[in-house]
Amino acid sequence: MVETTHPGNVGAAARAMKNMGLENLSLVNPQCKIGETAFARSSGAHSVLDNHQQFETLKQAVAESHLVFGASARIRSLTMPIVTPKQAMHELFDKSEETRVAIVFGREHSGLTNEEMDSCHYALNIPTNEQFSSLNVASAVQVVAYELFQQVNDENGIAKIANKQTEPMALTGDVDKLIEHLEKTLIKTEFLDPLNPKLLMKRLTQLSMRQHLSVIEVNILRGILTSVDKKVG
Amino acid sequence: MVETTHPGNVGAAARAMKNMGLENLSLVNPQCKIGETAFARSSGAHSVLDNHQQFETLKQAVAESHLVFGASARIRSLTMPIVTPKQAMHELFDKSEETRVAIVFGREHSGLTNEEMDSCHYALNIPTNEQFSSLNVASAVQVVAYELFQQVNDENGIAKIANKQTEPMALTGDVDKLIEHLEKTLIKTEFLDPLNPKLLMKRLTQLSMRQHLSVIEVNILRGILTSVDKKVG
Repeated sequence: MVETTHPGNVGAAARAMKNMGLENLSLVNPQCKIGETAFARSSGAHSVLDNHQQFETLKQAVAESHLVFGASARIRSLTMPIVTPKQAMHELFDKSEETRVAIVFGREHSGLTNEEMDSCHYALNIPTNEQFSSLNVASAVQVVAYELFQQVNDENGIAKIANKQTEPMALTGDVDKLIEHLEKTLIKTEFLDPLNPKLLMKRLTQLSMRQHLSVIEVNILRGILTSVDKKVG
Repeated sequence: MVETTHPGNVGAAARAMKNMGLENLSLVNPQCKIGETAFARSSGAHSVLDNHQQFETLKQAVAESHLVFGASARIRSLTMPIVTPKQAMHELFDKSEETRVAIVFGREHSGLTNEEMDSCHYALNIPTNEQFSSLNVASAVQVVAYELFQQVNDENGIAKIANKQTEPMALTGDVDKLIEHLEKTLIKTEFLDPLNPKLLMKRLTQLSMRQHLSVIEVNILRGILTSVDKKVG
């Protein structure tokens, strides 16, 4: 949860999570104290609040995740893939059991910034009434946690996840490092003008997020960049 | 909602309903005043609260409905048919558009009585973590309203439509040329040994094919390769 302002929403989200078997809550730069109000609204889901982690930025919070969904109500301007909660759960079918998934929820009034959405592989959109689209953040957590729980407890769902064997996915933090390396190399090759970067790095970040790079692929791409670095000097 | 004690829960339920296009709220013998707290928590879903109906008993409240679902967390002792929200929505498939459906939510701490469940055709059970099963009543309303909305809007999914508004895709032939260009550049940077290519190009081809590249992305990637070519000479 990014910059949540109301402790009641953090508590309600913890309750929603625990009801659906989820325990790992991370707060990015919370704008409220996780105290009495949060614990009261959690209605006994204390373990989720007691063990929550705090981070300064979203990038840090998702660095150890493989797959990141960013909840967003404003999807018209986005150029990334957009999924409903049901579609998101289908995406998880293909992934191995070791895949660490982060689901990101933004500020109560303004959601996630475009820059924060760039740290996500998918925009997660809960379809709502177009004339009244103002889901409470804890309600959004509830809906997504509910879908996740239904999927995991669907017998076919579990079988599908267990049967699928793919290459291990790269950690988001390692993909970030790849992008940083790429940026430096592109400055050396003069493809990127640091004084006039335009949207180039943003586009390349989006491209790399869409791909779900594997560990091996990240290593290959880092190797390519190093080979260019050596030549360009 | 039957004998709800906290006005915030009525407000949050109204918000959850309106978000999913539902307007008709009935309160059975409410144990709280529908005032400031309820309206604040409804976050603008005033029409639902303004137009709510009140009844003394559940029997009266559902008298004009054709099909009644009673939300229940304690299903072991029930002898009536029990459905999940997803199954409940499938039940609605067969029914005509004129079918008036009521979904009943009980008291915060004790749910619905056995007698009240007798006024329902189905018990509606939201599957949860067995070790921590304490859904907030407004969260339960949110989950059921969400399922209903998904079912009703399945064909015209908002997210599906939004997904179609993406950049023009690159032609396969242009992606092939990109890969050929990449191969030549990698030989120049000595990352690729043409006498011992192994599976490198195959892997990079798979990577580029896995997610459809857009025209703009192919152009950017070609530009990067050209910048490397110039430097490496």
